Amino acid sequence: MAHKNRIGNVFSLTSFGESHGPAVGGIVDGMPAGVRIDLEQLKHEVARRRPGQGGVTSTRHELDEVEILSGIMDGVTLGTPIGFIVRNRDQRSADYEHLKDVYRPSHADYTYQSKYGIRDHRGGGRASARETVARVVAGALAKQVLATMGITIAGKAMVSVAQIPEGDTCGGVVACEIKGVAPGIGEPVFGKLSSQLAEAMMSIPAAKGFEIGLGCDFANHLGSEVLDKWEVKDDKITTSTNYSGGIQGGISNGNDICFKVTFKPVATMMQAMEGISGDGSKVTIEPRGRHDQCVVPRAVPVVEAMAAIVVLDNVLINRAARL
Amino acid sequence: MAHKNRIGNVFSLTSFGESHGPAVGGIVDGMPAGVRIDLEQLKHEVARRRPGQGGVTSTRHELDEVEILSGIMDGVTLGTPIGFIVRNRDQRSADYEHLKDVYRPSHADYTYQSKYGIRDHRGGGRASARETVARVVAGALAKQVLATMGITIAGKAMVSVAQIPEGDTCGGVVACEIKGVAPGIGEPVFGKLSSQLAEAMMSIPAAKGFEIGLGCDFANHLGSEVLDKWEVKDDKITTSTNYSGGIQGGISNGNDICFKVTFKPVATMMQAMEGISGDGSKVTIEPRGRHDQCVVPRAVPVVEAMAAIVVLDNVLINRAARL
Amino acid sequence: MAHKNRIGNVFSLTSFGESHGPAVGGIVDGMPAGVRIDLEQLKHEVARRRPGQGGVTSTRHELDEVEILSGIMDGVTLGTPIGFIVRNRDQRSADYEHLKDVYRPSHADYTYQSKYGIRDHRGGGRASARETVARVVAGALAKQVLATMGITIAGKAMVSVAQIPEGDTCGGVVACEIKGVAPGIGEPVFGKLSSQLAEAMMSIPAAKGFEIGLGCDFANHLGSEVLDKWEVKDDKITTSTNYSGGIQGGISNGNDICFKVTFKPVATMMQAMEGISGDGSKVTIEPRGRHDQCVVPRAVPVVEAMAAIVVLDNVLINRAARL
Amino acid sequence: MAHKNRIGNVFSLTSFGESHGPAVGGIVDGMPAGVRIDLEQLKHEVARRRPGQGGVTSTRHELDEVEILSGIMDGVTLGTPIGFIVRNRDQRSADYEHLKDVYRPSHADYTYQSKYGIRDHRGGGRASARETVARVVAGALAKQVLATMGITIAGKAMVSVAQIPEGDTCGGVVACEIKGVAPGIGEPVFGKLSSQLAEAMMSIPAAKGFEIGLGCDFANHLGSEVLDKWEVKDDKITTSTNYSGGIQGGISNGNDICFKVTFKPVATMMQAMEGISGDGSKVTIEPRGRHDQCVVPRAVPVVEAMAAIVVLDNVLINRAARL
Repeated sequence: MAHKNRIGNVFSLTSFGESHGPAVGGIVDGMPAGVRIDLEQLKHEVARRRPGQGGVTSTRHELDEVEILSGIMDGVTLGTPIGFIVRNRDQRSADYEHLKDVYRPSHADYTYQSKYGIRDHRGGGRASARETVARVVAGALAKQVLATMGITIAGKAMVSVAQIPEGDTCGGVVACEIKGVAPGIGEPVFGKLSSQLAEAMMSIPAAKGFEIGLGCDFANHLGSEVLDKWEVKDDKITTSTNYSGGIQGGISNGNDICFKVTFKPVATMMQAMEGISGDGSKVTIEPRGRHDQCVVPRAVPVVEAMAAIVVLDNVLINRAARL
Repeated sequence: MAHKNRIGNVFSLTSFGESHGPAVGGIVDGMPAGVRIDLEQLKHEVARRRPGQGGVTSTRHELDEVEILSGIMDGVTLGTPIGFIVRNRDQRSADYEHLKDVYRPSHADYTYQSKYGIRDHRGGGRASARETVARVVAGALAKQVLATMGITIAGKAMVSVAQIPEGDTCGGVVACEIKGVAPGIGEPVFGKLSSQLAEAMMSIPAAKGFEIGLGCDFANHLGSEVLDKWEVKDDKITTSTNYSGGIQGGISNGNDICFKVTFKPVATMMQAMEGISGDGSKVTIEPRGRHDQCVVPRAVPVVEAMAAIVVLDNVLINRAARL
Repeated sequence: MAHKNRIGNVFSLTSFGESHGPAVGGIVDGMPAGVRIDLEQLKHEVARRRPGQGGVTSTRHELDEVEILSGIMDGVTLGTPIGFIVRNRDQRSADYEHLKDVYRPSHADYTYQSKYGIRDHRGGGRASARETVARVVAGALAKQVLATMGITIAGKAMVSVAQIPEGDTCGGVVACEIKGVAPGIGEPVFGKLSSQLAEAMMSIPAAKGFEIGLGCDFANHLGSEVLDKWEVKDDKITTSTNYSGGIQGGISNGNDICFKVTFKPVATMMQAMEGISGDGSKVTIEPRGRHDQCVVPRAVPVVEAMAAIVVLDNVLINRAARL
Repeated sequence: MAHKNRIGNVFSLTSFGESHGPAVGGIVDGMPAGVRIDLEQLKHEVARRRPGQGGVTSTRHELDEVEILSGIMDGVTLGTPIGFIVRNRDQRSADYEHLKDVYRPSHADYTYQSKYGIRDHRGGGRASARETVARVVAGALAKQVLATMGITIAGKAMVSVAQIPEGDTCGGVVACEIKGVAPGIGEPVFGKLSSQLAEAMMSIPAAKGFEIGLGCDFANHLGSEVLDKWEVKDDKITTSTNYSGGIQGGISNGNDICFKVTFKPVATMMQAMEGISGDGSKVTIEPRGRHDQCVVPRAVPVVEAMAAIVVLDNVLINRAARL
């Protein structure tokens, strides 16, 4: 469940921060007590989402030093909320002065202005991908709890556009597999595990499609072709195929949970774009700053993080399912 | 936001009911006071999801008489919760006795048993599409509020399988358009309107994919090809194309909100299926009862209902966005 | 946690119903699966809150037949939501026609009208004590789960007014003890067990004061006089006194949880009262209908029910406190 | 509504922080956009809760420099979450080494250890009154919004113990008045304004009693003595007395909202106390550190802050009450 700037119920993340403000950060509430946290591993996860890692991503050097402010003592979780901040550095806010009164195409400038009557125009403000650092920190904490339960999460980027012309961008797909989830996780009806994963993934900036198992391709098949037949393997009931993606009726069946998230191409490009000002006049926006050509590789750790948050929340809630 | 058997925050639906229990029903909390409710229109919406409406759907005759128990006086909403029930009739529970200890393939039998250690095996119990009647009742109420604001919702079924062999089933897609939503509706970050719609749609039984705007096809395009350019129309800022599906940064931009939901083929077929019993032995399940061949036409009013719940909830929450 | 017509998080009750509408009822969501429910015991609890049980309470004969509509099969909980309704009978709505445009003193008539611009004036509508039947049903279910854990709840009515003159009313106090709660239940900071109990109790109609342990009398003592000293008893750490009422820092310490709730005298009396109409003119209201002289005895099962809901919710949430 | 470390629904505070960790802080989510924030006024509120302000309070010099990290640009709220931190300084953690394995009487040491199996023993950890600084920051923000609506909140401390012996402590009462709330604020049934205020107040460290209006004294009066009679004043319907404390049926009636909170004496005293260690052996704890003799004066700004959070949340939610 998500509400405004919070996601999760028993295990939750509430986040804050504008791209060019002093810091981004968040509060992880509901972390179980007694978990030993490997901070090096956490830093590694955060580094994975950093820009400037490949030829197709931006070169802004975000140091992303995570400062943990509470909830962990001598490396072990206390059960109390974990507050954390990541200072924003290397901001070139002046790069955005020309955008103060301009709405860029396919950005959130106009929608934020419509909603709030005010917006931080610098670097996308709250609508910047910068906010995903809080997701990755919370996800890294969740992953470490899940690891103690034998649950692992692995995403991979798939880009189908063969070549991106100079100054253009492309989108793509992140496919993700969650292994080790016992049967019985997830809630029926509105709180289906697939439903919660969809919500979490579609909340990532630029996400435009979510598919579980065979996903949209289900529309092209007869029912008899896509039944997941039962088999017994290692003395456990399981399915020989996994069209369902590990979830039936909203609840895990013990098989791998497989889903895909489609991301649109980044709307900020290194070429002139046509914006509009509040009075309706067209404005040509010259390219400045540093921007990703393809968001998909950087989205992988974010997808994994959101999956970790959802799965841990549901594993914990499930402890109350039976007498 | 959804949690267990509830969806929505300021306007919410909590539902209950097993397919072969005494009744299904729900509570709509947060209905604004002073709305005149057209009960005939509500009945019409409920009738749209009833089985037995076309050659490709089941012939179970559900009367679906909705009984409103509170929250409406002399046809006008009081602002208090609206409780309602729909009695289950025409149940042929004996049709399911042979399934008491058997898990059907691609059904929720095994996952419910794993979660709760007990399940109502008759007609799918809580996991039956029967629960969607509560969604449609709540959605019909929400639609009537939205209509006073000039907001309309229309879905249509799209089935790509040309011919369904006797005893087989097929899936398909419901495409939905929401018209009349002002710019500024939806929350940033986790509570994006697209994120909430994804959650709501993926909670519908058999839903397997969700796409907003151009959706999964975004992966096949360059950024420059799918920018929504600005234009001024009727003195309002809008976009000349609508690849974004009416939502940017999670918030409505005033254009039509367009999304698609893919449904898998119904897993219950009028042909023998191979199930498994708790001890791991294979069981042949002979077809009985009455079942839909294609769920997609019946899913249309459910998709519309869920969209209405999400949009109304967000329109109401948005009243708190500014001083 | 409570929000509008719902209370509880992992175990919750959402209720509906006006006093003179067709029915009151609710949905209990989060009931653990596998609990054997004694329906006779549930009926007994509901009968305890019925009017007409003593000289000082009203003689309206509410049959209060609870109809369980879902979530229980063959007497055992399924883990799915339990929907239930109680039909309103023996309504004498005509008794209230003279109150249609009148606000009674110390009632909710004016406040509901101010909030919603409309109200059901018959018998208090949603603001009637009639709504407490849903609390008692949910509480009776919760009590049966708690009993399996060795937790019991017992309230008693204490009325200090020696004699109530003919046609007048009095208030009083319900003192309640919860026995058998293990140390460690409750959340720190905002979700303190004492905080949640206060919210639950103050939500009961006519509740005006809440005290935990020594309560308001703490203001009259020095710190050294009211320290709960430690002792070891039956090999367990406990306190020799219990000024704290079994809760320290918001979390149970294993001792009995003791609290008191003060109820005001019922504002509806069998004597003429001065009301006011919407235009500001004074109106004399002659007594009609049937009303309690003292609400306190009937409040006992309601207090116990709310305590059961809060404690069960917290016991279940606590399962997620540690790795 | 409160859940774990969060309080409020549409306007909410989530807080974090141990007394001797790096910082305490929080996230205010749901702040309406377009509110000009007076940071000097905010600092003033925070200074009011600081220890060392009078003869009867501790002399720890907390600088309490609030750092706002997001959600405000050029002094105006953006509608996005406001993250803030307050560094912990002047910590004398060594003062607490002797308490590492000891449970103090009437403290949360034992209950935290029971719940989590681990605790930060330094200065009370999460259970320290130090966490109230986050409440005051959020309350100061809420107050500034309420002021634009003509709503003011004022508490005052009332201490009945005439003289506190050297090394002892005393409790007392904070009486609070909220002026300017229009009729119609609050929710019926579980979300009563009185119920939410009770929850918020009882969540303050050391709070042990909550009373609305005449409160516990209602038990000593006949109904006819405590009716709030109607009158018309300045062309508005109001009551000539205010026994109800401004709330009827859980909803504001336009009169002043009056409530009282009783605080127990501080359990940490400047005299030897008897603690217990995990193995059950008694331990004499010699007084160290700096502690308040009477918490009541410092509790005033905290009570006001919690009232501001509750009232603003409800005023915002009320915008959705009617069509």
